[in-house]
Amino acid sequence: MRAVEVIMKKRGSLLNPEGSELTREELEFLVGGYVRGEIPDYQISSWAMAVYFNGMTFAETAALTDIMLHSGDTIDLEEVRKATGYTLPFVDKHSTGGVGDKMSLPLAPIVAACGVKIPMMSGRALGHTGGTLDKLESIKGYKVGLTPETFRDIIIKTGYAMTGQTKQIVPADRLLYALRDVTGTVESIPLITASILSKKVAEGSDALVFDVKYGSGAFMKTKDAATDLANSLVKTAQAMGKKASALITCMETPLGYKIGNFLELEETYDILQGKGPEDTTELTYALGAEMLILAGLAKTREEGVELCKKAVSSGKAMELFLENIRLQGGDPDAFVKACADGSGRTPFVRSIKAKQDGWLVIDAFKAGLAGVALGVGRNRTEEKVSGGAGFILKKRQGDYVKYGEEIMQVYGKDDACFADALPQLESSVSYSPTQPEKPELIYKTIR
Amino acid sequence: MRAVEVIMKKRGSLLNPEGSELTREELEFLVGGYVRGEIPDYQISSWAMAVYFNGMTFAETAALTDIMLHSGDTIDLEEVRKATGYTLPFVDKHSTGGVGDKMSLPLAPIVAACGVKIPMMSGRALGHTGGTLDKLESIKGYKVGLTPETFRDIIIKTGYAMTGQTKQIVPADRLLYALRDVTGTVESIPLITASILSKKVAEGSDALVFDVKYGSGAFMKTKDAATDLANSLVKTAQAMGKKASALITCMETPLGYKIGNFLELEETYDILQGKGPEDTTELTYALGAEMLILAGLAKTREEGVELCKKAVSSGKAMELFLENIRLQGGDPDAFVKACADGSGRTPFVRSIKAKQDGWLVIDAFKAGLAGVALGVGRNRTEEKVSGGAGFILKKRQGDYVKYGEEIMQVYGKDDACFADALPQLESSVSYSPTQPEKPELIYKTIR
Repeated sequence: MRAVEVIMKKRGSLLNPEGSELTREELEFLVGGYVRGEIPDYQISSWAMAVYFNGMTFAETAALTDIMLHSGDTIDLEEVRKATGYTLPFVDKHSTGGVGDKMSLPLAPIVAACGVKIPMMSGRALGHTGGTLDKLESIKGYKVGLTPETFRDIIIKTGYAMTGQTKQIVPADRLLYALRDVTGTVESIPLITASILSKKVAEGSDALVFDVKYGSGAFMKTKDAATDLANSLVKTAQAMGKKASALITCMETPLGYKIGNFLELEETYDILQGKGPEDTTELTYALGAEMLILAGLAKTREEGVELCKKAVSSGKAMELFLENIRLQGGDPDAFVKACADGSGRTPFVRSIKAKQDGWLVIDAFKAGLAGVALGVGRNRTEEKVSGGAGFILKKRQGDYVKYGEEIMQVYGKDDACFADALPQLESSVSYSPTQPEKPELIYKTIR
Repeated sequence: MRAVEVIMKKRGSLLNPEGSELTREELEFLVGGYVRGEIPDYQISSWAMAVYFNGMTFAETAALTDIMLHSGDTIDLEEVRKATGYTLPFVDKHSTGGVGDKMSLPLAPIVAACGVKIPMMSGRALGHTGGTLDKLESIKGYKVGLTPETFRDIIIKTGYAMTGQTKQIVPADRLLYALRDVTGTVESIPLITASILSKKVAEGSDALVFDVKYGSGAFMKTKDAATDLANSLVKTAQAMGKKASALITCMETPLGYKIGNFLELEETYDILQGKGPEDTTELTYALGAEMLILAGLAKTREEGVELCKKAVSSGKAMELFLENIRLQGGDPDAFVKACADGSGRTPFVRSIKAKQDGWLVIDAFKAGLAGVALGVGRNRTEEKVSGGAGFILKKRQGDYVKYGEEIMQVYGKDDACFADALPQLESSVSYSPTQPEKPELIYKTIR
């Protein structure tokens, strides 16, 4: 087999401009060979560009995903089943990322409280989007770099554990992503699919719910593009023998009232008390219901939502959440106190006030970028974030405001950051003379 | 400027799937940077694949060509003008290659005899296609690796000189071609255009005639593809301020009667005596007429053909041809003798005879590959060729043959080669129950 012939098969020809499906053996030769150092990067980047243009079938994407996930360690959760007698699928959720998207935090304990075991592997903030690991680390003492043994132990004890991806998990993805990032081949739905799925399957999940966002603050800007990615994720996961479904949800404006690291834990605490904002509560329950359906514990969205509500109202979800904080190194009492007295926030506070009367529009992307300036996120992976930075929306998109009313309460990592951050936050706000149409929070479900 | 952004500009996006035209500065940053070692190969190969899919405008291709040609030395022919008082354009011809395509050999002396100066830089055989340099080297003593000084001197003396590309000419092309060859990005019309044109312009030509072949033995298999390449070559050359035209010609079946290295010189000798085969004579005159039109010495094809015919009938073209052999290191008398007594051919001879009655079809591609087995050509650039190997068509496509009639006289580099070569040659021949339609030798002219 010659690499150039495999590349040309995908690239196609004058008579076959859309190229042909590669076999598993051809993908293994090319991508497996790249990971083993046998195939040079310049052949992988031209293949990736051919994939950008000609796509991949679900079977091809599944084969690529499988090759990638076997490039490193996979987590075996059999011991969890042995220790607990658990027979249902292990279920995880993946979000394509957004601003104020803290859903993993309340979702895991709620669904765990319903009896599902959740091996949750999350990421860090990058660019305008936040990261679950950075949020969790704003809890004093909370550790996210769990060994596989500790990860399993905590799942056994509280039904879920939160950790980051280790270097031993899917090394092929780090190699490929670094190459795609500099060769203009990131925006390929099958390559994105294989990147996401390989990590999720390697962490031991049997079933996956995807929250694929569309809108200004999302990776996929349009409903159509988000639908394409959601379809690819669900169909490819199913082609690999996993259960899967996806919600396509709105990321035009920040989710919830609180955006930041500890600020989003405050909102999580609210949601787990049944006092969360309408949108983040609705989305948490909808995602939870999907996870319960995949686990076989609910038949319909409605039935799943009811189970989630009960997990909250009974206090069981909160109990697991606080216990998880303890097991992962934090102090639950100190956490509850910080939520109550605001001591998790930075002492550098400002206000954004309405510059005119009008119906408020808040752009997720611009607000997310302002968050980076405040210290919530980072532009480069090596940068540190501030646990206490962020902003609280006093008014939200679709609210009518009068000149001078407070729109946002803003927490900076220091006094200096406001010079950049406040103009950016202000630019995320606009005033419409007419009430903006409310976008559907959940646009579509794909199963 | 960031390389990945330039790549993505060419690649396009969901909203702009065909990408955008790159500026000269962007191409200089990317390709110029690659040649200087500043841009890595994996970015160039993904850009090249994006170009394969999205193409380039003529202005873009002209900018790329200009950047490539300035990557190395260019030949200055000013001294030729000074020494001879020559004021017309320097004109060269480029063929995309084929089987039996020996047109450069008679064309240069014929057009030089008409008063045009021709700095001809040619290539070697590769794969099924022959190479002018290999053919010339089958003349004992003939040197093709001329220094720029000798190249100029011989043009001054006989009006034309034949040489190969030196390492100092367009090093960017060697770098880029080697990368394209292993990344599935050879078959891109703008990249082929820049590769051909950069070398032709670097060698000092002011005007260029392209012989773009279509058919089984051609690089471009269809008339449409050949037309696209011809258009790209002519329009890009014109965008660079050069005069240019192209003939699109048939390469379904081998050209002429004799295919090989010295064998094609024998046919050249026939053509220069006015005794050549109909097809190669017609094509030589048509290409010559185009060169005369570009040089301003003829207004129409007919006028140009008449001038070519006179150059032959007067003996002036033959005189220059034999003088060129002498100036480039060969012995004209020995050459003429070898043409007459067949001593330029190998002593290993076989026959291909008709296996049935029927109208003959001879496939150029398969015959060319058989030629490689005989020793005419090579599969890898480091292989040597045999000067005396090849085959003579006793019957040609469209002739009616009877069982047992001799179709080809075959000369092998040794006795052993026939085991492979003869079955290959036989497979190039088929017998049609009806007379095959004669393809037009010259399908189209683009000016």
